[in-house]
Amino acid sequence: MPVSKKLPQLFYGGDYNPEQWPEDVWLEDMRLMKQAGVNIVSVGIFSWAILQPNAENYDFGWLDRLMNLLADNGIMADLATATASPPAWLAQLHPESLPVDENGVRFSHGSRQHYCPNSKAFRHYGQGLVRRLAHRYKDHPALAMWHVNNEYGCHVSRCYCAECTVRFREWLQQRYGTVQELNARWGTNFWSQKYYAWDEIALPAKTPTFANPGQQLDYMRFMSDSLLDAYLGEYRILKQITPDVPVMTNFMGAFKPLDEFEWAKHMDVVTWDSYPEPTAGIPVAAAMQHDLMRSLRGGQPFILMEQVTSQVNWRQRNPLKRPGVMRLWSYQAIARGSDGVMFFQWRQSRAGAEKFHGAMVTHTGDENGRVYREVAQLGNELKRLQALVDTRIEAKVAILFDWHNWWALELDSKPSRDVLFLEQIGHYYKALFDAGIAVDFVQPHADLNKYRLVIAPALYLIGPGVSDNLEAYVQQGGTLLTTFFSGIVDENDRIHLGGYPAPLRKLLGLCVEEFDPMLPDQTNGLRVRGQGDLDGDYKCTLWADIIRLEGAEALASFTADFFAGSPAVTAHTFGQGKAYYVGTHAEDAFVAGMLRRILSDLGVQPPVMTPLGVEVSERRAEGRSYIFLLNHLDQPAEVQLPAAGFTDLISGRKLQGSVRLSANEVLILHKDTEHAV
Amino acid sequence: MPVSKKLPQLFYGGDYNPEQWPEDVWLEDMRLMKQAGVNIVSVGIFSWAILQPNAENYDFGWLDRLMNLLADNGIMADLATATASPPAWLAQLHPESLPVDENGVRFSHGSRQHYCPNSKAFRHYGQGLVRRLAHRYKDHPALAMWHVNNEYGCHVSRCYCAECTVRFREWLQQRYGTVQELNARWGTNFWSQKYYAWDEIALPAKTPTFANPGQQLDYMRFMSDSLLDAYLGEYRILKQITPDVPVMTNFMGAFKPLDEFEWAKHMDVVTWDSYPEPTAGIPVAAAMQHDLMRSLRGGQPFILMEQVTSQVNWRQRNPLKRPGVMRLWSYQAIARGSDGVMFFQWRQSRAGAEKFHGAMVTHTGDENGRVYREVAQLGNELKRLQALVDTRIEAKVAILFDWHNWWALELDSKPSRDVLFLEQIGHYYKALFDAGIAVDFVQPHADLNKYRLVIAPALYLIGPGVSDNLEAYVQQGGTLLTTFFSGIVDENDRIHLGGYPAPLRKLLGLCVEEFDPMLPDQTNGLRVRGQGDLDGDYKCTLWADIIRLEGAEALASFTADFFAGSPAVTAHTFGQGKAYYVGTHAEDAFVAGMLRRILSDLGVQPPVMTPLGVEVSERRAEGRSYIFLLNHLDQPAEVQLPAAGFTDLISGRKLQGSVRLSANEVLILHKDTEHAV
Amino acid sequence: MPVSKKLPQLFYGGDYNPEQWPEDVWLEDMRLMKQAGVNIVSVGIFSWAILQPNAENYDFGWLDRLMNLLADNGIMADLATATASPPAWLAQLHPESLPVDENGVRFSHGSRQHYCPNSKAFRHYGQGLVRRLAHRYKDHPALAMWHVNNEYGCHVSRCYCAECTVRFREWLQQRYGTVQELNARWGTNFWSQKYYAWDEIALPAKTPTFANPGQQLDYMRFMSDSLLDAYLGEYRILKQITPDVPVMTNFMGAFKPLDEFEWAKHMDVVTWDSYPEPTAGIPVAAAMQHDLMRSLRGGQPFILMEQVTSQVNWRQRNPLKRPGVMRLWSYQAIARGSDGVMFFQWRQSRAGAEKFHGAMVTHTGDENGRVYREVAQLGNELKRLQALVDTRIEAKVAILFDWHNWWALELDSKPSRDVLFLEQIGHYYKALFDAGIAVDFVQPHADLNKYRLVIAPALYLIGPGVSDNLEAYVQQGGTLLTTFFSGIVDENDRIHLGGYPAPLRKLLGLCVEEFDPMLPDQTNGLRVRGQGDLDGDYKCTLWADIIRLEGAEALASFTADFFAGSPAVTAHTFGQGKAYYVGTHAEDAFVAGMLRRILSDLGVQPPVMTPLGVEVSERRAEGRSYIFLLNHLDQPAEVQLPAAGFTDLISGRKLQGSVRLSANEVLILHKDTEHAV
Repeated sequence: MPVSKKLPQLFYGGDYNPEQWPEDVWLEDMRLMKQAGVNIVSVGIFSWAILQPNAENYDFGWLDRLMNLLADNGIMADLATATASPPAWLAQLHPESLPVDENGVRFSHGSRQHYCPNSKAFRHYGQGLVRRLAHRYKDHPALAMWHVNNEYGCHVSRCYCAECTVRFREWLQQRYGTVQELNARWGTNFWSQKYYAWDEIALPAKTPTFANPGQQLDYMRFMSDSLLDAYLGEYRILKQITPDVPVMTNFMGAFKPLDEFEWAKHMDVVTWDSYPEPTAGIPVAAAMQHDLMRSLRGGQPFILMEQVTSQVNWRQRNPLKRPGVMRLWSYQAIARGSDGVMFFQWRQSRAGAEKFHGAMVTHTGDENGRVYREVAQLGNELKRLQALVDTRIEAKVAILFDWHNWWALELDSKPSRDVLFLEQIGHYYKALFDAGIAVDFVQPHADLNKYRLVIAPALYLIGPGVSDNLEAYVQQGGTLLTTFFSGIVDENDRIHLGGYPAPLRKLLGLCVEEFDPMLPDQTNGLRVRGQGDLDGDYKCTLWADIIRLEGAEALASFTADFFAGSPAVTAHTFGQGKAYYVGTHAEDAFVAGMLRRILSDLGVQPPVMTPLGVEVSERRAEGRSYIFLLNHLDQPAEVQLPAAGFTDLISGRKLQGSVRLSANEVLILHKDTEHAV
Repeated sequence: MPVSKKLPQLFYGGDYNPEQWPEDVWLEDMRLMKQAGVNIVSVGIFSWAILQPNAENYDFGWLDRLMNLLADNGIMADLATATASPPAWLAQLHPESLPVDENGVRFSHGSRQHYCPNSKAFRHYGQGLVRRLAHRYKDHPALAMWHVNNEYGCHVSRCYCAECTVRFREWLQQRYGTVQELNARWGTNFWSQKYYAWDEIALPAKTPTFANPGQQLDYMRFMSDSLLDAYLGEYRILKQITPDVPVMTNFMGAFKPLDEFEWAKHMDVVTWDSYPEPTAGIPVAAAMQHDLMRSLRGGQPFILMEQVTSQVNWRQRNPLKRPGVMRLWSYQAIARGSDGVMFFQWRQSRAGAEKFHGAMVTHTGDENGRVYREVAQLGNELKRLQALVDTRIEAKVAILFDWHNWWALELDSKPSRDVLFLEQIGHYYKALFDAGIAVDFVQPHADLNKYRLVIAPALYLIGPGVSDNLEAYVQQGGTLLTTFFSGIVDENDRIHLGGYPAPLRKLLGLCVEEFDPMLPDQTNGLRVRGQGDLDGDYKCTLWADIIRLEGAEALASFTADFFAGSPAVTAHTFGQGKAYYVGTHAEDAFVAGMLRRILSDLGVQPPVMTPLGVEVSERRAEGRSYIFLLNHLDQPAEVQLPAAGFTDLISGRKLQGSVRLSANEVLILHKDTEHAV
Repeated sequence: MPVSKKLPQLFYGGDYNPEQWPEDVWLEDMRLMKQAGVNIVSVGIFSWAILQPNAENYDFGWLDRLMNLLADNGIMADLATATASPPAWLAQLHPESLPVDENGVRFSHGSRQHYCPNSKAFRHYGQGLVRRLAHRYKDHPALAMWHVNNEYGCHVSRCYCAECTVRFREWLQQRYGTVQELNARWGTNFWSQKYYAWDEIALPAKTPTFANPGQQLDYMRFMSDSLLDAYLGEYRILKQITPDVPVMTNFMGAFKPLDEFEWAKHMDVVTWDSYPEPTAGIPVAAAMQHDLMRSLRGGQPFILMEQVTSQVNWRQRNPLKRPGVMRLWSYQAIARGSDGVMFFQWRQSRAGAEKFHGAMVTHTGDENGRVYREVAQLGNELKRLQALVDTRIEAKVAILFDWHNWWALELDSKPSRDVLFLEQIGHYYKALFDAGIAVDFVQPHADLNKYRLVIAPALYLIGPGVSDNLEAYVQQGGTLLTTFFSGIVDENDRIHLGGYPAPLRKLLGLCVEEFDPMLPDQTNGLRVRGQGDLDGDYKCTLWADIIRLEGAEALASFTADFFAGSPAVTAHTFGQGKAYYVGTHAEDAFVAGMLRRILSDLGVQPPVMTPLGVEVSERRAEGRSYIFLLNHLDQPAEVQLPAAGFTDLISGRKLQGSVRLSANEVLILHKDTEHAV
């Protein structure tokens, strides 16, 4: 099923802020949009101050004209609730709606997102506006989707105001019932922190030293929930008035402040804004985030809601995307599950903080530049790709991804604060990406049975039921790979006692006796012998576990320091499956080799073998397969196709045997024997 | 005309703070001052707390005695208004007079400059003191000049208090008339920032992300104006009571917070405080600032009001000026238009935050050390140089320098935040300095017709009338050179639409299609062919413009990246003149070579050709010329004099042909055939 | 006399926080403690919130049970006053008890040490608890020592609240009597800072630039005194109720905020917490701090109150102590005067901010790991070392160490802020450590006559009587070595006028004409000729004094810059002694060589000659000597023993001639002819 029944195609368009322009420019916009293949635009995201001049009055005139113009031109609207940035009068009328930082400093009006998510005034006025918008446009022919607020938490993901303090206590009471239970969960007998009443509890604002980790962790949960609750306040109104229109907000990829698995339950489609550093080489991190976004709703296609055509404005220096790169990266999104490609923004602003942020139409305002030409080319290509809509990716490998683990792992007071969640996830993801293997991200308590291999890097926090889930998965034949500093704490960041990693010891067949974090310039070695292709000597960094085997066998051992010769990487047969453990941060070559061997044992293969730098991905529907080949190199690359004839969906070219992709080239291969739509 | 009729000589002296010493030391001070050739001292700068023990009472006794002592010893007073640092009782009585930072934190009493420039209490009590000082000393024989406050904005150039908020709104109302106009200027339809009433407008204090650039830019204007208004409050009182006594405040060189062109209109003489890093090599930056100070009032001589004899106290580490360097740098100031050399301070303090700041008399307190010896030598030399008073520098080259452009260019949210105003100005200034070419700094709307070459590096902001001014100048035969990221925005930081640089496209004969900022370790190349001596290959960094020629010819092209071969440097004949454009940050050798060629075409030459490291400058009066040669090298240098006989004004030596300057040596050459005073 | 009559042995144990565990774990704790040789534990440090559930009520039940259990098991209690971290209800009831930072931000409850030391509420409730504890346990058989609060000032050593402001004014009035005197001391005629009334004086909070140095220095004194006063409030109660029980608080080594010489007057024994970076090589800094702690009470043995068995949790990354290192460093403490070895903590916490801080019993909770085995080995060894109790170290060399000098030297606004107190002290300490020479630290006004050599590095501040003391010491035959930037200011950071270093000029026979701080990458050279073994060329950095001799002779001269050839190091015979001056930061080899020569002249020798990396120290009692040899190298080392037979106190081994110490090995040599206890 497509995202919106009203637009059963790949979405193509961008944020459209016509309120920044005289209305005669709107007509030129329509012409240029149609020429570029635009079929949807996001409107009204920052329009609250225009739509509502004061606490009592509204002015929908311009929006009416805009929506009608869009409808007249056959362009759909992703209509925003306009609550992303409250008007100045709200800050003036309700200064307490402005958020407060950990030092007690209240933010000022003058940029954007200056609201406390728990502010009653913000919610009251914001929801009032949403209700009016929903009623006014519920039957409008241009309305294809609701865009709630914008990039929740982007700048203000924490607030320390008085209202948040009260709400935090309520949230805790809801979660723990009694102060006694809270004391047990937070371990408040440490450092004399015991509470006797709810109203003794403060937010973890500026403290003399490390705040209670349980308190910090719950505060992160609370803030994710507070923002979600602000979202839900608008969501429910929209669902009540327009039950059939899809509702969503746009994420920012792997964004720490929001538990996106929880949020995605309340979104009809996941959308996100992707801004990779354009000089950072092959966009593995973007690929990973596309896969994460696709995974948030179990494989359902997502939408790339924002990217930039050329250059952004907010880094210290903002190089251009080279010619062809915007197109290549747009296809990467589609290859990994996006059903659309959208940009911030349509027409580059004349004024304001983002006037140097690239757009589909630049400051020259015409259709002659490189940027618009590339935009129009892509838009017109996408029209030919309708067959891709709602096709799916079938992954045999999953990586465990849990926001609670992320939050807990990166709290202060650790054996090493150099162990960062996304780096550890990315370390394993990269090896799979390079090998062309599709990956899903799943939560630790999810059903894992459809995966042949589950990887759990740095699964520091293991909540209730998780070790049972993992054991059952392996018992029944699954393969698990986990790494150092996993299985250490429970959902309140309390140690699982009884020898690390207590809840995984049985499954892994080992005990970690000590952690030895390494300094930045320190290394150890991994020696692998008797393991076939993997044999050799590798470098490892960051961390060494001192491991005692309790049934596992050593695959690699450390080569240096007082624990030289002790196991570093192990394997343990458990039931019908196998559990691997990597007790250090091994160099890429080792991870790639180890995964190659495991995947080969499990019979997991890429759709097509490609050289490094040529990304491969496959989308499928009943009886149909579309294999994407994306050449990220700045030189041509050869790919040997499987024994069959293919057609490139973009060019219509017939391909067979060995194909040569020029730099930045994209192919979407459809097997000729299959039924194409 | 000399700065002060009462002191028609080069000023020599320093800040004198006798309130820190018992009065018997004052007598020793007089002896040492006269021995050192001191003819003027700045007194009372930090004396408010002593002159006024509380809100009602004053005590001028010690100042009376001091002024009389100075008069008795033939030393003039640059008498301060003493408002630079309010007394503790004012902070106690009016805490709201203390300034507030962007986080809402009010500063404490305990150092200096702890006042909000808009504070009513500060102005009331400060002006009350000024009025009394002016009446008391208006006829005093020692009074030669008024020194208003001190280094305005040095530590507190921004305040975010409630009074400033109110004044900012008034200032905006004054400037824009209606809220509607303000909305248009600031582009408030971006990010929902539209205002409906003046009192909705806040200062750009701590915001979640980038504040509105128009708001930021106007706040910088407002703060410069607020400080100027505080100055004018004192200035007007002094002018009313002592209309014939020159009034000024001391600048700090190219100081971003103050629009010094605007300020200089209200000063009888420009003075400034110069503290180059003593280990930073040839003092090009000091030379540039001397030229800027001289330019602020159209070439009128300025005064070097403060420098240090030896070492300062406020850097992380404070090396000494080597022997001879203080003298050399003092003459540099005179060479570039100063009519005096003064120091902070006369006698090194025993206590307080600046006790390790060097002085004319050090902690030993006697006349035997190296420092005093050098001070006395210089003071006695200057007595011989009366002929220099009020002589002028005639520059054929101007660099455009506009504080509004500086402010706007360095706001956040740019294609590259590595483009810094003074660096871009200095890049071209250095080439001229090395070539011995005199330079004026002028505002973009100034009359340019007396200059053969006008250079406008990074003229990002172009306000009303500026492109007409530049076009008219070139049309009538002038030569303009401007560089990348020029002509981009108007006076409210709104894009000039229609293709960069819209207001200069016609004049430059080109269009910049895209900006490509470079990363710090990134370079491109410039290829020059068919341009005679300039031919060759050069390096460029920081930024590349992708240029489409519209009448201009390419002088150099890029050598790498997808725009290799496209124009990087261009020339365009326009009317009777020529307009050059440099679309990148070229290496020094290219800039030097290009300017050499242009200056040669225009017949602009230095007074004398000197080797690198030997600075040359010329001051003139009717029929007289004084050529300064300053050897900044740590070894001797040879200079070939023009065919004439010269006399060195300092030593009286006759010179001809080739002269050899020892390290740090200074010559002031007067042509023997001219009439010397 | 041992520290506690009730425990006449070397202390062995750790912080014990049983409130974090169910009571059945307590029994296992007793078993493991006894097995490990534990004889004392610190209890109750963070128990306030448990002992006092609200402002009116107390609950001592669990502590009664714990104290009884300890007594039953023959383990002594170092009983804490539990005031280190106030309960949440106090923050709720008295928010003004929370400390305030220099920006006026009040700290939150949620970590620890969140109290203003001057808070009336904190003192009232804290002392109320102490009184009850003292009455309740005064006759308890387990009570061996009182542990007041914990690590005073660790996180909050400065407070800027309203109460502190009032107290600061009182403290100043007490110190100076009149505002006039304060003005003179602080030099307030500088920068218009003159005060007319006590209540005009503010704390040196956030000021626009450098605050008055006299004010800053007095504020540091005031805060040390404020914390001491908080300590004394508890101390006096304990002394009144239990006059015979030793009372102390635990220091953190050379900790800048507390004037530990002043504090130690009010402690029965000095104890401290030592956490060297485990990868930083030979623990010279720890040795130095052990010596300082021993010196605070004139050589009386101290207690190593906290160290970690394995790894801490609060650095960015926290490597393990390698096997044997904990033992080696424990013996280092004893070698340098500790009468005990204790740890934070007994049992590793399950929750809270320190759960990854190592402990005697780790998270595995059993006796099988490396850590517990090493703990138990050491505990059982110490039982054999009772002879060491209350033995003393006899040093012939002293280093002057003055907190007031430390504070003043590191204020802002200096010729160089790279001159850091501990680095300068450590520079000379290291040479003595390497040479095996025992060192005491003494205050500048102390009786110096028992020392053959006194070293005063960077003795910037010289208060009343100090130069007389130093002159008298040298006059009578002592040897003094002092260094650059000494003798510069008085106790109020006012310059000693009359040529640097005015109060030492006569003694040193020289005058320092100028200071020339060097940049980080800058060096000069030292040339030594005619000085025997010391002859050669050395490097120096950081600072150069330009010295004029006035009776001293030059031992070394600078080799570069305009002062090349001028004296850099001097010697001056004064009375029967000699005064050396080092006018730069000389490289290690020079300092070592110079001290070797001076010590040789003075006949000062180490107990045994050892190779670099083998630490030596000697503890003595009447007729007995114990020579410690500690091999800090990671390889064996040979030491040649004096001509006598020795017994190693730990192993009982007989040793003679040359002994070989393996890596990390420790020997405690007792001469066989002496009388052992």
